[in-house]
Amino acid sequence: MRDQYHEELDAITASLVEMTNLVGSAMSRATTALLDADLALAESVIAADETVDALYRDVEERAFLLMARQQPVAGDLRILVTSLRMVADLERMGDLALHVAKIARMRYPATAVPPAMRSTILEMGQAAQRIVAKAGSVIASKDLQKAKELEADDDVMDRLHRQLFAMLLDPAWDGGIECAIDITLAGRYYERFGDHAVSVARRVVYLVTGERHEPPAPAVLVSEG
Amino acid sequence: MRDQYHEELDAITASLVEMTNLVGSAMSRATTALLDADLALAESVIAADETVDALYRDVEERAFLLMARQQPVAGDLRILVTSLRMVADLERMGDLALHVAKIARMRYPATAVPPAMRSTILEMGQAAQRIVAKAGSVIASKDLQKAKELEADDDVMDRLHRQLFAMLLDPAWDGGIECAIDITLAGRYYERFGDHAVSVARRVVYLVTGERHEPPAPAVLVSEG
Repeated sequence: MRDQYHEELDAITASLVEMTNLVGSAMSRATTALLDADLALAESVIAADETVDALYRDVEERAFLLMARQQPVAGDLRILVTSLRMVADLERMGDLALHVAKIARMRYPATAVPPAMRSTILEMGQAAQRIVAKAGSVIASKDLQKAKELEADDDVMDRLHRQLFAMLLDPAWDGGIECAIDITLAGRYYERFGDHAVSVARRVVYLVTGERHEPPAPAVLVSEG
Repeated sequence: MRDQYHEELDAITASLVEMTNLVGSAMSRATTALLDADLALAESVIAADETVDALYRDVEERAFLLMARQQPVAGDLRILVTSLRMVADLERMGDLALHVAKIARMRYPATAVPPAMRSTILEMGQAAQRIVAKAGSVIASKDLQKAKELEADDDVMDRLHRQLFAMLLDPAWDGGIECAIDITLAGRYYERFGDHAVSVARRVVYLVTGERHEPPAPAVLVSEG
């Protein structure tokens, strides 16, 4: 019985890692769809979110049943409660990739990203992928070095986010209000994606080391950085 | 022992209701600070978020200890797991009120809200208050009628959110990019605040009726509504 319990716990961990792959791929494809105004790709990201949502409900239910049936000791219970939180973060990350894809779809056949901002959006997409890939490693292997790198990658994300605002506010730029709205929202989606991945990694670090980080600091706004 | 368990469970419910009061008050004051460019009020909202965060950590820990010590049966365990999710929603709502207050602080002594948009922002603030007050009632008294009203209030919020975008995109309006960014972000904060309150109420409805609603639909973007 005890062995089956740990098998089921391992299966939950494997599902969480799978979710990091799915939402990482979703954000990567959403970024490409946004930059290339690729409608088919955007649609595929939007459709694929259902898979993430199904996995979310599945992990939730399996974790709950494991708690209810096995009455785990405090340490194992802590792992399960933490899994419930991580799966919620990952589900939300899927939504954020979907939001980026929806901006691409909304502006098709035009592109939502003005030429001057392409490289920043590209880098935000890449930072998102690095962060979520590392979150997967942290879940799978409790790799605390990767957790540390991930925090640095998220600093990069925040820097890119501020850069995006600086470009929007540059008096030389006049891409119009609609574009400013799109870029403001897209920037926010990338930044929140990073925050949730940081949150996932910190939860694992807490399980391993007992050191609790505070939740990610509130997003830095335009002129605060 | 059993009685003490239910007392502790009731105390957790009371703390959740208290959190709805705190974040409702925070969003109300943040809205006033935003509309009146009231720096002192904005600072008080920002400072008060620590109380919400402390309560969040406290409820989390109490719920966890109750699970670990009492090994509750499935029904009671479901209540505790749900409480963990609700407290996370409420903590996030506090952050969103804080974000609104930070916009007010950032633009002080100017106001971030142009005259034409004041009434819409005011109504979004009021909708936020109604929604979170009803979420409190739903938690406290399992009032399913209030849960239904809350869904309707959130539809109002979504309508106001679309209205805000329509005003920003009106060719007659030219408040500038900075203002468009502020209003885009503020609009998003109100809308997410409403979503989280809806999520809290739906979790209670699920506990009471067993009817599961899907998570709130992804935010409606500018030209999708």
